Formats: sequence, C-alpha cells, structure tokens
Amino acid sequence: MIELADVQAAAQRLHGVAHRTPVLTSRTLDALAGASVFVKAECFQRGGAFKFRGAYNKIASLPANERAQGVLAYSSGNHAQAVSISARLLGIPATIVMPEDAPTAKLEATRGYGAEIVMYDRFADDREEIGTRLAEERGLVLVKPYDDPLVMAGQGTVALELLVEVPHLDLLVTPVGGGGLIAGCATVAKSLRSDVRVVGVEPATGNDTAQSLAAGTRVNIGVPRTIADGLQAPEPGELTFEVNRELVDEIVTVSDEEIVEAMAFLFDRMKLVVEPSGAAGVAALLNGRVHGTAVGVVISGGNVGVQRFAELVGGS
Amino acid sequence: MIELADVQAAAQRLHGVAHRTPVLTSRTLDALAGASVFVKAECFQRGGAFKFRGAYNKIASLPANERAQGVLAYSSGNHAQAVSISARLLGIPATIVMPEDAPTAKLEATRGYGAEIVMYDRFADDREEIGTRLAEERGLVLVKPYDDPLVMAGQGTVALELLVEVPHLDLLVTPVGGGGLIAGCATVAKSLRSDVRVVGVEPATGNDTAQSLAAGTRVNIGVPRTIADGLQAPEPGELTFEVNRELVDEIVTVSDEEIVEAMAFLFDRMKLVVEPSGAAGVAALLNGRVHGTAVGVVISGGNVGVQRFAELVGGS
Repeated sequence: MIELADVQAAAQRLHGVAHRTPVLTSRTLDALAGASVFVKAECFQRGGAFKFRGAYNKIASLPANERAQGVLAYSSGNHAQAVSISARLLGIPATIVMPEDAPTAKLEATRGYGAEIVMYDRFADDREEIGTRLAEERGLVLVKPYDDPLVMAGQGTVALELLVEVPHLDLLVTPVGGGGLIAGCATVAKSLRSDVRVVGVEPATGNDTAQSLAAGTRVNIGVPRTIADGLQAPEPGELTFEVNRELVDEIVTVSDEEIVEAMAFLFDRMKLVVEPSGAAGVAALLNGRVHGTAVGVVISGGNVGVQRFAELVGGS
Repeated sequence: MIELADVQAAAQRLHGVAHRTPVLTSRTLDALAGASVFVKAECFQRGGAFKFRGAYNKIASLPANERAQGVLAYSSGNHAQAVSISARLLGIPATIVMPEDAPTAKLEATRGYGAEIVMYDRFADDREEIGTRLAEERGLVLVKPYDDPLVMAGQGTVALELLVEVPHLDLLVTPVGGGGLIAGCATVAKSLRSDVRVVGVEPATGNDTAQSLAAGTRVNIGVPRTIADGLQAPEPGELTFEVNRELVDEIVTVSDEEIVEAMAFLFDRMKLVVEPSGAAGVAALLNGRVHGTAVGVVISGGNVGVQRFAELVGGS
C-alpha cells in the first residue's frame, strides 16, 4: 500500500520536471454528461501520457549507485517513452525491450529520446525472460510499468493536481490497465476527501480488474482484444490490486465503439488528440456509465498517429 | 486606430465569459524553431477560435436599445459561431447569412447555438446585399468579422493574456486574414513592449496584406485558393489596414503544404487539433520564416472536422 505522503514526495520530485497539465472544461460535455466535468489532460504530459510521472518518480528515487548502470523496461507503448525521457533527464542509459513489429513511429520516438532498443520476436521469445536476463547481465534496474509503489505514487500526482485545482469533486474517473494510475489517484482522493467516489473504466473485453474485484482475487483473462492498447493488461498487478480492492468504488466498462465515439467527440468539441485508452473515461461519461455532480476525468494519453486516428475515427 | 485601453476594456467585458486559453510549450518545437516558443491555444476558446473575443466585445458594447432586435453576420466560418454564441449569452437573437453549400457540420453547429440561418446561393446572390437588406428590414445590427474597432480590441485580448503570462517575448506571430487579430495584438504588444516584433503570416496564394503593405495602399487580390479558409480575405480591412501599416513589422507567407505539415506536427507532438488557418504561425516557425528568442505564436482556431483533417493530414 502507498500513502498520501508517498504521492506528495513524488510531486516534489516531479516539480519543474513533469508538466502540470491543464484541467479543461466543455459546456457541451457538461450538458451530455449531466454534470460539471473537469478533464485532466495528460495527453499534454511529457511523452504524451501520464506514464512519465511514475517512471520518473521511480528512477529519480533510485540511489545513485543503483541507477548508474542504467534502467531497463519492456514496453511498446507509453511506458517505453516515459522511461527513455526520464533516463535521459537523469543522465543515465535506458534499454527498452520492444517487439520487432512495434509501430515504426514508436520505435523512432523511443530512439529519439536516446534509448537503446532491444528487439524480440513476440511470437517466439518471452520478453520478461529477455528483460530479466539483460538486466542481470548489464546490471540494469527494471522499471515496471505499474506494479511498483514508486510508480503508483508518481501516477497519483495526477489526482493531487486535479484536487488542488477542483477541490469539490464528488467523482473521479480514470482508465484502468494494470491499475497503477487508479491506485495512485484513489490513494490521493480517499485521503483528501473520504466522500469522493473513485471509478475505473476498462474495455468491455478487457475487464480483468472488474472480474478480479468480483472474485476477490486476481483473475487472468489473457491479452484482451481491444483498440485500447494501453488497457490490455491480462490481469491486475499484484500491488496495484491490493490498493484498488481497498479504495476503488467501482469498475465500469466501455466498448471499442464507444471509445471511438469519445475520441471523435474530444477531437471535434474539445480539440484534443486522445488515444483510445485515453478516451475511456470520457466514453463512460458520454454513455451514462458513471454519475456525479462534479466529475474529474483523466485523459491518460494522446499517443495515436494521424493514420491510425483517421482509420479509427474517420469512418465514424 | 485603437489603443491599449480599448483592449483592456474588452478584457473586462470578456472576463469570466471568454476562456483564458492555455499557453503551451513543446521542447520539440523549441528545438525545431531554435527558440523558446509559447503557443497561445485559441483552439480552446469558446466556439473553437479567437473570433468569440471580438464578436462578444462588439455585441456586449452595443446600447441595449440597439441590440434588442438582434444582430446579423455573414460568415460560413468561425465568425458565425462566435456571433451566435455571443448573442445567446446576451439573450438576443442572431441571424447568420450562410451559403447554402456550407458544410453541414458548420450549419448544425451554428443552429445548435440558437441562431437563425438565412441561406443564399453564392453563385447567384450577393451576401452583403442580402445582409444589408435583412439588417434594415429587421432592425438588426451587422457584426463585421474584423473591420470594427470593437472587434479588433476584442481580438487584442489574446496578446494581452499572452504578454501577462510571458512578458519577455521578443517576437509575436499571428495568422492574418482580414487583419483583425493582428491589429488588436500589435496594438497591445507595441504598447506594452516597444521592442517586440510583430509578424503576420499569410498563405502564399493569399498575401493581400503583404502586397498592400508593399504598395502602401489596400490591394484586392480576389478570393485566394488556399486550404486556410479563415485566411481567404481578398483584401485587408479598411480599419485593420490603418492599424497594421503602422504597427506590423513584417508579413511572411507559408504554402498549403507547409500548413498541413504544421497541422500534423501539432497533432503528433502537441496533441492539438488545429485548423489550417490556425497552423499558419507554427508553419512559419517550422520553416524558418520568422526568427526570435522568445516567440509567442497564436493558434487561431481548431474547427476542422475529422473527415477533413484525415483527408488533409492522413495522406502526409
């Protein structure tokens, strides 16, 4: 479990390094959701997603001698960029283990931040095995994408900033992948205001956290098929689940179609570029899955290429 | 001519009504532009563009008896929405004269704000004639899109906000259509800091203001062909030109291709939805047409549909 003080310490480390992302409002969204909605736009975070907060908090907390050799992560998504940027800022090398069929744009972006990329065949190789071996051989520290107290605490700074700006929230909505974002945010929200409800949103096909909460234990559903590539965790993290079973009030789900509609709404009416995973919270609001009076909703990221965006949304 | 006091009065009227839009930064943009760049994101303004500032300032300044019958505008673009929203906020009717082949989305948006739409055939009818006749018949006040001191003063609040937030700018860059935005912004910039350069950006095919400044008198170039539909004025406004010939340091131009590249950059790297006209300033920066150390650039609007965006940018 983590505590408010851990998130406050993360906020100190991130001060002047992470962007304090804007909180945006839209009268149209308010009318459609039947609530005052406050959108925390993490698409404007460094690396295009909230992931930077957790990665930087973790790496900056490592003792100098531990991190001197560098850090390693396996990810083809936002965590890879977050670790790469953090390592560069802290002057240490980063190694990222990525599938060889990862989108060129993501490979380029990660390389652009100065990371060394080690590719693997995701049909033949086990990335965890490769990662563990590399970490041992080279003396690198593995930075997990969510199942780490320092990562969770970093992600919690999203809610800390939002609640300072909008203290009267009665509902906080975030997407749920591995559960790090909601774990950090719920820790903050419940500490600062015991009466704020915290609701997570999963893809309908990827409701591993919903199933796990219902079962009272972690359920592995395999890698779900969904356009929300950031929410494809097959099961909750061990540590994140311990936090979330205590603090999260409810998990709701949205379909891929609802996610695409929310992406189009955010583009048309709010002028925001939001990736599928990032739009899950707004999709839940637009489809009446969550109800509140003053609602904070986290847009977790905006890393979607123009081509992919046009494919997904252009047809709607 | 207008003065700083006019813009300050506009700021008072707009306080709590217009959005105070965020100023965004990007390390990638800084690196590409070789400067510290501060992006004033008017795509987040009400109605999706800076136009709301001028329209509201004008309509709110009308004596109650003059505005009681309502206001009229002819526009198929952002000015139509700006006038409609302003009229609704002030509780008076708005009539918008629009071509019958205007995009359905723009017709719907304008109607959605409660305006009455009068359609005309732009190949057979003269919209000014229709507008003037309607205004007389119905006792409506015509709200011009730029050639009005109150409209210019309203647009100047963009620069007022930007210079309060970033006082050390040495260059301010804005798109130029009819010239209202740059007239208001130059008035503010030159009053607050005599050493800040003010540079306007026009489409290469639509450089009526550049030609007019060179000629020392207004030059009409006909309606230019460009994707930047907000910058298609055939000639500078009468009043705006008087201001701009005094205060604008330079006009540079960008091609439609450069605009599309800037739209893609803003989407990919800054997660912003920006319409072609809105991206002109960033296009000038990315292509080395303007040079400064601390550069303010106005993104004038974000009203571009998903389909159109995909057509323009998806192919690049």
